[in-house]
Amino acid sequence: MPPETFPFLSAATPVCPPGLLARAQALPAPRVALVNAGAAVPLQGLREAADLGLARPVLVGDRERIVSAADEIGWDIAGLDLVHAPREEAGDAAAGLIREGGADAVMKGQVHTSTFLKALLPSRAGLREKDARCGHVFHITLPGSERPLFLTDAALNVEPDVETRKACLSHAVRLARLLGDDDVKAGCLSASEDVTPQIPSSGEAAEIAAWAATALEAQVQGPMAMDLILSAAAARVKGFEGPVPGDADIVLVPEITTGNALFKLMVLGMGACAGGMVMGAKVPILLTSRSQQAPDRIASAALGAILAAAGPG
Amino acid sequence: MPPETFPFLSAATPVCPPGLLARAQALPAPRVALVNAGAAVPLQGLREAADLGLARPVLVGDRERIVSAADEIGWDIAGLDLVHAPREEAGDAAAGLIREGGADAVMKGQVHTSTFLKALLPSRAGLREKDARCGHVFHITLPGSERPLFLTDAALNVEPDVETRKACLSHAVRLARLLGDDDVKAGCLSASEDVTPQIPSSGEAAEIAAWAATALEAQVQGPMAMDLILSAAAARVKGFEGPVPGDADIVLVPEITTGNALFKLMVLGMGACAGGMVMGAKVPILLTSRSQQAPDRIASAALGAILAAAGPG
Repeated sequence: MPPETFPFLSAATPVCPPGLLARAQALPAPRVALVNAGAAVPLQGLREAADLGLARPVLVGDRERIVSAADEIGWDIAGLDLVHAPREEAGDAAAGLIREGGADAVMKGQVHTSTFLKALLPSRAGLREKDARCGHVFHITLPGSERPLFLTDAALNVEPDVETRKACLSHAVRLARLLGDDDVKAGCLSASEDVTPQIPSSGEAAEIAAWAATALEAQVQGPMAMDLILSAAAARVKGFEGPVPGDADIVLVPEITTGNALFKLMVLGMGACAGGMVMGAKVPILLTSRSQQAPDRIASAALGAILAAAGPG
Repeated sequence: MPPETFPFLSAATPVCPPGLLARAQALPAPRVALVNAGAAVPLQGLREAADLGLARPVLVGDRERIVSAADEIGWDIAGLDLVHAPREEAGDAAAGLIREGGADAVMKGQVHTSTFLKALLPSRAGLREKDARCGHVFHITLPGSERPLFLTDAALNVEPDVETRKACLSHAVRLARLLGDDDVKAGCLSASEDVTPQIPSSGEAAEIAAWAATALEAQVQGPMAMDLILSAAAARVKGFEGPVPGDADIVLVPEITTGNALFKLMVLGMGACAGGMVMGAKVPILLTSRSQQAPDRIASAALGAILAAAGPG
């Protein structure tokens, strides 16, 4: 296929930040249950994570398909845990494994995201504390820098209410602190820095920032538009003061389209590596888009190992 | 002030694309009415446009303040048109000028965007055809490339209904064609390429793309997430076919927060130059954010000159 020449595509090669990888490799490798493991691409993803010491594979799905997919990629899986389950039952089987303590993390295999999550997230799956809300958090780094920008929720909650957004922000703060950041700064994104009734996310951002002042171990400001999150100079022009502009660790978006587009522009337009996972369940749920590349999958697995070692929270 | 070191900020210097500038300079300079011209920063913006042959200034506002601001930046305005109007009447005065044919474009001066637009956009201002919908269009280019990506609506319509989004798309197609693109391709952004009831913008994107097939001189696809708009390779992975992936000229967003964040990430994170204006009124309305820089203001003025020469449409 011809190289892509679209000028808004980055020529930079994404890399999983070595510091993140090293931090994960210093921890015990979690048992990662791959749901519907019988396909070459997801199996290869888990294999890469295992080779790097980020996962001990638990292959869940149709035994025959798994063996065939392993043959296809030349992976000897004879010594690995394999839980046979028909295709439509693989998610439930993985949920059962987790409930019984047989897996420390779960990874999406050859299954639609919605089917995958429907097996894991409803209360009946038993993977969440009562009233706990799940949220997806991306850990995004650019080539040449180890400093992450966390983005939530760009993948799971479509139109999260304020309580769900608070949970997403809490998850991101927890992850940032787990990675060693003890001065976490977060911006609640809107289209404006003014609270205006025409833009409901502006008032909601102010509400979340006010709540965070006592509820979270982080400095949280909002509403802020993207210029104020990225640039202290832009904030000065607008007379917007505080610690977050130009120094943000976390961006909390109001709904999924904004987050999804931002993360994809960072990955494809800026060469970013984006590791991501669903937080808020008993174990981390590793979830990457089909169009994401190997560095993203490795970063996700590294984050999964770090969160699995920390335990539920 | 110290240089900014945030890794998500681009070190590239934005430039107004020379081809855009040359195209505008080959046309008659429009008479540009600056609303509330009595402040140094906007006056300097119009001066730069005038110096480049992109505008013949018409200064609207309090005479004393305008003279004082001109003194401040050392600009001899003795030979320029000046329409005296008290601060709160400057927008109405500019609307009157346009109705009477005394200006070919209008530019925001020292006035809040909402106040500025409230003087120009309501039907009583007489600047729109009956039922015509206005929309903001950004013309975004990256350093080293003249190829624009048009983004609409990232600045005016907060939660545009489908009809308003169709108008925004039509304005962007018209602008792209005016700039010489006779094979315009547009993507209607959502968070997914699947039409799903959980994401209303996905179904609306499909509706707009179906409408555009007969209504617009452009190839329009949607719903598409940002990866499919930017990358033909990502589209292949997902089995998404058609002309737009990796070759998009226009991105139509479902609501303002998505567009606003994308444009600001392109400007601050990728070094983009973003010229923008409101289309759909009798004359182009030049509108940049306070935190935007000189190349953005020059690109806006160049687009204004090109649109003013083409007349209303």
